[in-house]
Amino acid sequence: MILDIINKKRIGKALTYQEMDEIFNGYLEDKVPDYQMSALLMAICINGMTDQEIFDLTRIFIESGDVLDFSDIPGIKVDKHSTGGIGDKTTLVIVPIVAACGGCVVKMSGRGLGYTGGTIDKLESIPGYRVDLSDDEILRQVHKIGLVVTGQTSDLVPMDKAIYALRDVTSTVSSIPLIASSIMSKKIASGADKIIIDIKVGNGALIQTKADAKKLSELMIKIGEFYDREVRTIISDMNTPLGKTIGNSLEVLEAIDVLRGVEKNNSFVDLCVELATNMVSMSLGIPMKEANKKVLESIQNQSAYHKFEEMVKAQKGDLSKIKVSNHTMFIKSPVKGTIEKINALEFGKLSLRLGAGKENIDDKIDYTVGIKLNKLVGDKVKKGDILATIYYKKKVPEISFDNIYKIS
Amino acid sequence: MILDIINKKRIGKALTYQEMDEIFNGYLEDKVPDYQMSALLMAICINGMTDQEIFDLTRIFIESGDVLDFSDIPGIKVDKHSTGGIGDKTTLVIVPIVAACGGCVVKMSGRGLGYTGGTIDKLESIPGYRVDLSDDEILRQVHKIGLVVTGQTSDLVPMDKAIYALRDVTSTVSSIPLIASSIMSKKIASGADKIIIDIKVGNGALIQTKADAKKLSELMIKIGEFYDREVRTIISDMNTPLGKTIGNSLEVLEAIDVLRGVEKNNSFVDLCVELATNMVSMSLGIPMKEANKKVLESIQNQSAYHKFEEMVKAQKGDLSKIKVSNHTMFIKSPVKGTIEKINALEFGKLSLRLGAGKENIDDKIDYTVGIKLNKLVGDKVKKGDILATIYYKKKVPEISFDNIYKIS
Repeated sequence: MILDIINKKRIGKALTYQEMDEIFNGYLEDKVPDYQMSALLMAICINGMTDQEIFDLTRIFIESGDVLDFSDIPGIKVDKHSTGGIGDKTTLVIVPIVAACGGCVVKMSGRGLGYTGGTIDKLESIPGYRVDLSDDEILRQVHKIGLVVTGQTSDLVPMDKAIYALRDVTSTVSSIPLIASSIMSKKIASGADKIIIDIKVGNGALIQTKADAKKLSELMIKIGEFYDREVRTIISDMNTPLGKTIGNSLEVLEAIDVLRGVEKNNSFVDLCVELATNMVSMSLGIPMKEANKKVLESIQNQSAYHKFEEMVKAQKGDLSKIKVSNHTMFIKSPVKGTIEKINALEFGKLSLRLGAGKENIDDKIDYTVGIKLNKLVGDKVKKGDILATIYYKKKVPEISFDNIYKIS
Repeated sequence: MILDIINKKRIGKALTYQEMDEIFNGYLEDKVPDYQMSALLMAICINGMTDQEIFDLTRIFIESGDVLDFSDIPGIKVDKHSTGGIGDKTTLVIVPIVAACGGCVVKMSGRGLGYTGGTIDKLESIPGYRVDLSDDEILRQVHKIGLVVTGQTSDLVPMDKAIYALRDVTSTVSSIPLIASSIMSKKIASGADKIIIDIKVGNGALIQTKADAKKLSELMIKIGEFYDREVRTIISDMNTPLGKTIGNSLEVLEAIDVLRGVEKNNSFVDLCVELATNMVSMSLGIPMKEANKKVLESIQNQSAYHKFEEMVKAQKGDLSKIKVSNHTMFIKSPVKGTIEKINALEFGKLSLRLGAGKENIDDKIDYTVGIKLNKLVGDKVKKGDILATIYYKKKVPEISFDNIYKIS
């Protein structure tokens, strides 16, 4: 039977709910071995899935674990998801903004994966910050201060964890239907009423082309309609690192600068404002223009930053103890010109080598290392200008300038 | 690196020799896990392979084990391969014919797979028959009597054994490039100068359509050209069981009847004559017409049957001890009419249930059970006529007449 199911997908036919239920739940129950599931995943990757298959698979994913119920919390719960990128610390900025504007946000974030950092790792660079709140603690905190950013509770969509781990080691990550059902099942299971998704496109992202990003966007909106959840999407560039920093402590400090209005007028700030505006509009049911005004005000009047402080304090973090390595070196421009490209993927790899992420499952993250971009794309530079500062710990990293920068 | 290789095939690009060497030999050396190899095999199944990839993969297969050298044996060594079917006992008939005509044949055969029987299992129904000759014993026997049919020596193309076992449990068996390199690597490694391949097409075979059979045929001829081996192919029907019997002892007895000229004028005999004629023509370098004459003579004058007796004796078998179960039941025609179809696959499944093959790896084969067709396709039958005799052992099998026969 399992072989018939795999074979059906191999020849490009659509699977029924019952067939997917049998093989996916069989896998979760250790009845279907890895090698059969990976064969099926590859067939899905290449031959795709119909909308109905994707809806069904999403349901199988959701029903594999707990479904959170936040109906006790008044108002519309809006969740945000990013498909992941290099230097993506948007969650740290937008959750406090939305809370400051009167929305309620329960955000369950993940850890780093491949070259991309994870919000939970970033928050753990704040000494003491707890990312393991129980469902009860989450409810209490949201009732009290309106926001929480914590790790995913362990029994949420266990199917996704199992399948993702296998996809990761079988070159079957980049399947639009599998990405869509993975994301949507997690958002639905974690109790969101409305969802905004930031789809990253570029060499530093899961999705490499605009066409794929559009497909993924349409698919997630469809899944949302099927499950009665409003879904909005934003497609944003990930050929260049997001913002000015890569690395855990550095990114928290940058997020704080944005929340305090110190950092402004760059594409990262613009993206945060766009995402937050959408969330506020969805959460409060107000027009975008009005939401945008509230968002900007919350930065200007520091209320967003205060929400961030409140959250960190509630989760036992101590902002005064954030540390950045004091070993630095500089990437200097060998020429005069304008920065045309800063390769996100290469900086992602460098950040991993520095220790900001895990190369192997047993590695420990060094929260203090990373990269700060002193110049951004479009900036004019002179020969010898500092383009970036590398915060390292153990050994001076090797850097291939030409792989990272294009200046002309 | 392994992930990059899988990914390359996932997006439909051709792999280099080095890439295939890395992943396939890595698999054989237990460095690449099953789930990665099965993902690659599925990608190959769906996206195909270029001719160069197939040549390279065949080389990797050949070089994974020993390559037999039969250059000591005078003359051109011709080997025959069948892609397998229900009731396929051609090897038992044609090897003695070719030897009787003056050709030399070293035939390494396999065991049953799925619903299809294996020549080695059939020969083992002759009590005492040895299928585990050493290379030395093979050489000595061929020098002495000109023919040998034995099991594959264990270190011949170990890659094929490993990959086939995985394909079998991941719905990746039916890939033309994988079938072609599997067959051709084994034939080349077992020392054949010239090869004839009987490609079976139909519901009882690996290959289901004529179009696929033609593709496979062209591909194997190309691989032969690349490795300087003459390859001829025959495409033959496998919607209907081959010959009149299915089951080990029964098939040996039928082969003997054909060799003795008792059984004649049916499509199984015709196929044997066609295959043997090609082999004799290739082996002796004579025209087909002349070869055909020799083949028919070898049957008429019993020299082919005597070669068979010689071989069985040399390999310690005792023909007088072949046994067939004495529990029989009949399938009778419920109507008057002409037999339009006898479903090979359904009879293959029935034969497996009777115990003529292994449903599970630990099952023991019962050599005495099987099916004898009393009437063939095209025969006119009256209501109540015996269509087939079932030789069973333990329990009376359930038979679904309508699945097997079409009479109108």
